Amino acid sequence: MKNDPIALDHLDGLVEAKAPAYAALSDLIWGMPELRFAEHRSVEAQIAQLEAEGFRVTRNVAGIPTAFVAEAGEGGPVIGFLGEFDALAGLSQEAGVAEKRPLEAGGNGHGCGHNLLGAGAMLAAVSARDALREAGMPGRVRYYGCPGEEGGSGKTFMAREGAFDDLDAAVTWHPGAFNAVMSVRNLANYQVYFRFKGKAAHAAGSPHLGRSALDAVELMNVGVNYLREHMPQEARVHYAITNSGGVSPNVVQAEAEVLYLVRAPRVAEARALLERVKDCAKGAAIMTGTSWSFEIDKACSELLQNRTLETALHGNFQALGAPAYDEADRRFAGEIRASLSAEDIASEVASFGADPALAEAGLHDGVLPFDGTPLVQAGSTDVGDVSQIVPTVQAWGACWAVGTPFHTWQAVAQGRSAHAHKGMAQAAKVMAATALDGFRDPELLARAKAELAQRRGGAAYACPIPPEVAAPPLRKRG
Amino acid sequence: MKNDPIALDHLDGLVEAKAPAYAALSDLIWGMPELRFAEHRSVEAQIAQLEAEGFRVTRNVAGIPTAFVAEAGEGGPVIGFLGEFDALAGLSQEAGVAEKRPLEAGGNGHGCGHNLLGAGAMLAAVSARDALREAGMPGRVRYYGCPGEEGGSGKTFMAREGAFDDLDAAVTWHPGAFNAVMSVRNLANYQVYFRFKGKAAHAAGSPHLGRSALDAVELMNVGVNYLREHMPQEARVHYAITNSGGVSPNVVQAEAEVLYLVRAPRVAEARALLERVKDCAKGAAIMTGTSWSFEIDKACSELLQNRTLETALHGNFQALGAPAYDEADRRFAGEIRASLSAEDIASEVASFGADPALAEAGLHDGVLPFDGTPLVQAGSTDVGDVSQIVPTVQAWGACWAVGTPFHTWQAVAQGRSAHAHKGMAQAAKVMAATALDGFRDPELLARAKAELAQRRGGAAYACPIPPEVAAPPLRKRG
Amino acid sequence: MKNDPIALDHLDGLVEAKAPAYAALSDLIWGMPELRFAEHRSVEAQIAQLEAEGFRVTRNVAGIPTAFVAEAGEGGPVIGFLGEFDALAGLSQEAGVAEKRPLEAGGNGHGCGHNLLGAGAMLAAVSARDALREAGMPGRVRYYGCPGEEGGSGKTFMAREGAFDDLDAAVTWHPGAFNAVMSVRNLANYQVYFRFKGKAAHAAGSPHLGRSALDAVELMNVGVNYLREHMPQEARVHYAITNSGGVSPNVVQAEAEVLYLVRAPRVAEARALLERVKDCAKGAAIMTGTSWSFEIDKACSELLQNRTLETALHGNFQALGAPAYDEADRRFAGEIRASLSAEDIASEVASFGADPALAEAGLHDGVLPFDGTPLVQAGSTDVGDVSQIVPTVQAWGACWAVGTPFHTWQAVAQGRSAHAHKGMAQAAKVMAATALDGFRDPELLARAKAELAQRRGGAAYACPIPPEVAAPPLRKRG
Amino acid sequence: MKNDPIALDHLDGLVEAKAPAYAALSDLIWGMPELRFAEHRSVEAQIAQLEAEGFRVTRNVAGIPTAFVAEAGEGGPVIGFLGEFDALAGLSQEAGVAEKRPLEAGGNGHGCGHNLLGAGAMLAAVSARDALREAGMPGRVRYYGCPGEEGGSGKTFMAREGAFDDLDAAVTWHPGAFNAVMSVRNLANYQVYFRFKGKAAHAAGSPHLGRSALDAVELMNVGVNYLREHMPQEARVHYAITNSGGVSPNVVQAEAEVLYLVRAPRVAEARALLERVKDCAKGAAIMTGTSWSFEIDKACSELLQNRTLETALHGNFQALGAPAYDEADRRFAGEIRASLSAEDIASEVASFGADPALAEAGLHDGVLPFDGTPLVQAGSTDVGDVSQIVPTVQAWGACWAVGTPFHTWQAVAQGRSAHAHKGMAQAAKVMAATALDGFRDPELLARAKAELAQRRGGAAYACPIPPEVAAPPLRKRG
Repeated sequence: MKNDPIALDHLDGLVEAKAPAYAALSDLIWGMPELRFAEHRSVEAQIAQLEAEGFRVTRNVAGIPTAFVAEAGEGGPVIGFLGEFDALAGLSQEAGVAEKRPLEAGGNGHGCGHNLLGAGAMLAAVSARDALREAGMPGRVRYYGCPGEEGGSGKTFMAREGAFDDLDAAVTWHPGAFNAVMSVRNLANYQVYFRFKGKAAHAAGSPHLGRSALDAVELMNVGVNYLREHMPQEARVHYAITNSGGVSPNVVQAEAEVLYLVRAPRVAEARALLERVKDCAKGAAIMTGTSWSFEIDKACSELLQNRTLETALHGNFQALGAPAYDEADRRFAGEIRASLSAEDIASEVASFGADPALAEAGLHDGVLPFDGTPLVQAGSTDVGDVSQIVPTVQAWGACWAVGTPFHTWQAVAQGRSAHAHKGMAQAAKVMAATALDGFRDPELLARAKAELAQRRGGAAYACPIPPEVAAPPLRKRG
Repeated sequence: MKNDPIALDHLDGLVEAKAPAYAALSDLIWGMPELRFAEHRSVEAQIAQLEAEGFRVTRNVAGIPTAFVAEAGEGGPVIGFLGEFDALAGLSQEAGVAEKRPLEAGGNGHGCGHNLLGAGAMLAAVSARDALREAGMPGRVRYYGCPGEEGGSGKTFMAREGAFDDLDAAVTWHPGAFNAVMSVRNLANYQVYFRFKGKAAHAAGSPHLGRSALDAVELMNVGVNYLREHMPQEARVHYAITNSGGVSPNVVQAEAEVLYLVRAPRVAEARALLERVKDCAKGAAIMTGTSWSFEIDKACSELLQNRTLETALHGNFQALGAPAYDEADRRFAGEIRASLSAEDIASEVASFGADPALAEAGLHDGVLPFDGTPLVQAGSTDVGDVSQIVPTVQAWGACWAVGTPFHTWQAVAQGRSAHAHKGMAQAAKVMAATALDGFRDPELLARAKAELAQRRGGAAYACPIPPEVAAPPLRKRG
Repeated sequence: MKNDPIALDHLDGLVEAKAPAYAALSDLIWGMPELRFAEHRSVEAQIAQLEAEGFRVTRNVAGIPTAFVAEAGEGGPVIGFLGEFDALAGLSQEAGVAEKRPLEAGGNGHGCGHNLLGAGAMLAAVSARDALREAGMPGRVRYYGCPGEEGGSGKTFMAREGAFDDLDAAVTWHPGAFNAVMSVRNLANYQVYFRFKGKAAHAAGSPHLGRSALDAVELMNVGVNYLREHMPQEARVHYAITNSGGVSPNVVQAEAEVLYLVRAPRVAEARALLERVKDCAKGAAIMTGTSWSFEIDKACSELLQNRTLETALHGNFQALGAPAYDEADRRFAGEIRASLSAEDIASEVASFGADPALAEAGLHDGVLPFDGTPLVQAGSTDVGDVSQIVPTVQAWGACWAVGTPFHTWQAVAQGRSAHAHKGMAQAAKVMAATALDGFRDPELLARAKAELAQRRGGAAYACPIPPEVAAPPLRKRG
Repeated sequence: MKNDPIALDHLDGLVEAKAPAYAALSDLIWGMPELRFAEHRSVEAQIAQLEAEGFRVTRNVAGIPTAFVAEAGEGGPVIGFLGEFDALAGLSQEAGVAEKRPLEAGGNGHGCGHNLLGAGAMLAAVSARDALREAGMPGRVRYYGCPGEEGGSGKTFMAREGAFDDLDAAVTWHPGAFNAVMSVRNLANYQVYFRFKGKAAHAAGSPHLGRSALDAVELMNVGVNYLREHMPQEARVHYAITNSGGVSPNVVQAEAEVLYLVRAPRVAEARALLERVKDCAKGAAIMTGTSWSFEIDKACSELLQNRTLETALHGNFQALGAPAYDEADRRFAGEIRASLSAEDIASEVASFGADPALAEAGLHDGVLPFDGTPLVQAGSTDVGDVSQIVPTVQAWGACWAVGTPFHTWQAVAQGRSAHAHKGMAQAAKVMAATALDGFRDPELLARAKAELAQRRGGAAYACPIPPEVAAPPLRKRG
């Protein structure tokens, strides 16, 4: 059935035909790395491309200037592809070299591969639309332009405003070192600022008149460290002192701030734990005669696995296989790996749940096995909130040398490489194929939804970010 | 004017005549050491003697079974002599030997010389009454039987019930190693129990279900240690953990208790500091999800110096001089000193504000100089509350070898010695003489009262122990 | 094959014939509850019975006065039954009543059912020997009299001295509320005293001269609470302050002690974690100018599951089934359950990994399913060390009403009940049958040993308690 | 003796003649506020003026680019005038207005009046030289250009290199709100950086692999807060967290830094206390598995009072009296005072030890009394080190409205005012007169030196900053 528009080999051709354009788009975004919620140029580049492809674009989703949705097709189910495109601070790096070489001191860089992530998801969306159109099948394809994934929980703010409510399924991926279903059990989280206000005084002359906000931060932290014994072992609480109240020891610190990240397997548990952390702040304020306040910065729900869709995606990945790397790809990957320690590589391999023997591979030539068991990870992602609303499936696409850690110059250096482009295209095929399975098979979507409903126990989605917390770009700072 | 009944040499004779009887009473009390508020036999012995001397006795003062007042004389001013008679735990010791030799393992002992203190104050009271009677002068003499000085604040409970309100002056003394006016600026204090209740749980199996009262005690203590930076430097806060919640690490501690002693130069400052310490308890309870309560155990006001009376007492001490020690006294004192290090002796000498050269003396043959400047000491005494109500003066009487530390077996061992008896009699003379100065010279008492009023700035006495706190022997324990 | 001496129904008869005698022995030990390492009378009673049964007794095993081994039979494999018989403080309770009613205020009680444990293991040993003898089969049966399980790690001290080295298998059980294989993954542990010595000083007068040992304990604890963030999540560290340095806040505490229990999944991890806890002690001593020392009190290795023997035991349990309770048993169980909350019962049921629906059962009439997966528990037991040396299998025997918590008066009250006696006899049958499987089937023992070797990765047993640490009854205390 | 060149009224004329030039120099420096050790333009302006006056200038004293000495005269004693000229960050302010109005956002400003301090000391030096020259008396006058007083201890670095060793006396002043001898007992100090290095790790994914340098800082601080109980009450320890290890809670902080200021009445005590603080750092590093290092940033010795010179200076101040303020001066002072609360004013007045009634004064029209008793202050100054080497005397000169706090915009706003210029000239007269007393009266200098020798107990000056610590501008930063 060579002409079945949805046959994998046909789809492969559709994706490959457009892959160079999206590789170019990815490279463009790589070259103008923008931090969370400031991805204005990256968004414009994507929207231009999507409009050229005939997608209908809605800007300012959830009121966020860099959040948008692009849709194509008519009728039928609605399947969304989630794209990200924000960069990281301090990771400026020249492409294509295997040594640390910033383009701009202190500049930004795409250390998490979101240039590929967004462009790849777009390529999947466009290709799925192309296939649907050729097949004359109903169905709508959406691309979600999701800003601020890095410490911003952009999708959670979008979810709170209902942006994903009418989807039948969501599909996304992440660049990495392996080809695999990304089936993960992770942690919900809350990120919260705690601020204390005390009273300044000369620290030698009249310390008894001072009320130290830094003391309050320290005592809050001591209290939380005691709390660790009495919280569920899978939970995590960590913090950074974001304002220590000044660098002069001579003055009792009148204000100070600490940023907490509170995580637990389920969002309700994270919220309960946050209340206990707040009690530590309150207790510290009372102890020190200071006042305190808190500000929720962001939050994520835990990922809900969808084994139904994951099984479908895994089947497509097995059928499509790994990208076809060439000698040059392997040579550059080898050079990158030479910059990493064996421990780093082994640790990265383990974090994917991959066979330790794969640490020897330069680039991943296969597809990792999948038996329906999710990998347990202590991190968090705002894809979690999408997965609470709509059946969601994710892929890992091998874009980097095996062992490349996230958020490193090595990841940035490979961000425009030929092997990254190949990994992106392959992931786009797998995603598009899985979406097409859904368009073609209403039963699949129904089963995926039933699984979601069963996992949620019938409860409706409740966004972990309270309604009064504005998305970061909309916040007024005092 | 040899026959002037109030001439010092005549008074000297009066005191010496009765001194053997009171030395015997002191020895009797030494031999039946009773702890705070349990001084029943010591009280009976004193009352029997006072009734034999014709004093009118009121028992159960302030409702406390071992508090009493004995009065003699009619009309005129009322001057009170304050006596103490409680012993200390763990200080059982044979008399008259210069090595540690308990009479009873773990038994009590008069390590603070209160056997001498009470008997000496009685001897002063009786002798002053005798002199007044001979002179046919009006005036009432009182002996206050004050229990529970050691960690009990007996006088403060008595003061709260008005026991000292109608006095014109109060006189007392303390055995020590020197002859001197005891003019001291010390600290007011509050002693308070803090109790926490949490929830037990298996510390390994379900620590997340436990709420640790021991954590609360520790966090309260951490909070208070941070508070130290921000309190007046003369203040003191210290604590003991009186219930750590059990010795098994396997159980989350469901209850715990810590006993705080909070001191500051003035009682109002101590009270304000106590509020901040309470905030640390409250904050710790909130941090740990436990509940807390507190119980005031006792409190003392700071001593108010009365330079008027101190100057009078110093004059009498100079006129009367030191006791006349003999060779045997000096030999025993020398043996006691041989059991002490040079550092101990020097430290003790310094604590009296005495010339360091006096560390060489075996027994103090002179009277320490006094220029009206009080010695600053960081401790507390319940004489403080009397001094807030009525002009109060204190003497040190040399009863021990120079360098003898308080609360040691060495102090107990000297408690029935000839030199202690001599020191007690000499102190009784000085106290009686000072009281007689008052009876004879209304101007002196008026000036003393004016000084007190000036120091208090016109404020009435407010007892630091709240009305609802029962004296220890009257307390119900849950 | 009715006369097969090892047929289960024949074995059943052997056990039932002697069960009354061992129920009586259990009751005798229940009536003279002795604490860890002081089980002298309980040991004598057991030895008398074993000698009457013709066992050869070795006393003073590992030099511990209440540790002994009794052996019978000749040649063949050696299979050991592990018995315990120590009681708990503060759990004195009348038998057969469903309300808290101590026999002796503050007295001991068999709150963990070790009276049943020892007698039941003896009954199994004797019955297995009887069956072997009837069958004329070679094989040696041992009963291990293991003292001090409660906080004493008696078996670990015995293991260190080689007491289990020549065994082919070890079998034991524990009274509980269910009939089941006890297949558990637990934690290795170390219990360690930390002691600090500082310098006393008057806390108000000269605190700058004091060095507080209590400060050191508190700072060590703060350090350990910070350490929690950075240790594996399955590890556990908990502590009790066993000497707070005195109850007087007026003295800088010159000595203090804290008892730590450090646990981790594997003994090597526990040891590594203990080193970090010791660093906290060292750091605290340096911070406070105090000196520190530590004393290992006891330690246990983690349990090594032996699925081979567990499968055999489970088969026997399924074949033999639950004890046959009667109406009176069920009535008493019902009364006991009426003294417990639904939450307590549910929590106990969950701790056995049993179906929550079983919370409704008064007594357990079935056998819990077993699929080879161990239950994960955060506790520890000294059976762990035996399981590291020799293939070891454990059963739960239903002796208590469903929901009865361990270490409660309810457990003591049921310790002499008819249903406890029945549960003990049934467990004895299951244990004896499993041992007989081993005697009959050398392959089974070989597979069990191979499994052990595989789990140990070829490493020889290394006792977690260093050679210089004497067993508690042999220790000199300073 | 109208023509006595050293008569006060003649000296008054000499100073007044040159006062306008030095007021202009002060204004020039006010207008180019430079931070510690970066006072290059201010130094050039001063040197130009001093060279114009015929002084011999030595630059780069102690190797510090902005430290210099200017000398004039020949033979006789050598008396030095100490000048300062560094500004403060963040205190930019328009002159002559009574409201906060920065000239440059975040810019520097002369909030401590060092523009006046340096110019005034120069004016005194030049005038003393003029008087000596007129009188034909031998004697050398020096002006010390001392950089980096604000948190830099410039003089201590100069002292370490011997810059003050051959002086016979040192004289200086400070602008303030009162005319007075500045006789102070303050605290020696050490300012020390503590740095910790740990190991980064993902705070949720692998916290057990991380070693937190921030934990180490916090635990060090907890340890120091416990230490407070056990240090002399006059000592002070305070700190600022100068590197919290980053603002991301998601990463275990691999490095962190805290800056400590350790003070005590005597430099030896400060050094001993610093050792105990270092122990807290060491203990925290051990507890957390991090490494630590420290770097002494600066140190000051305590001021040694020189009552001999103070008495001489006080006599001159009484003879010369306060500056003659006019209506405009008082009006502006009144406007400044209107911007301050009564509490602020009262607190400032108290900090000078002045009569509280003077809080009502707009400008100080008298000279504060002096009875030889120093004011106790808990701060520190690098004049302390000069005072340890050579008899040193300081004056307060009334340049600001009564109640003006140091380091405020109000101080900057008055820095070029007419009343500040008058206060500066008056202080210059007092300083010059006192120096001339010394030149004229060798006995005075001898007595001053004898007093210093007696206070030092015969010990030679030992600089508190170790030889290996480079002055800040000479330091290499890693």
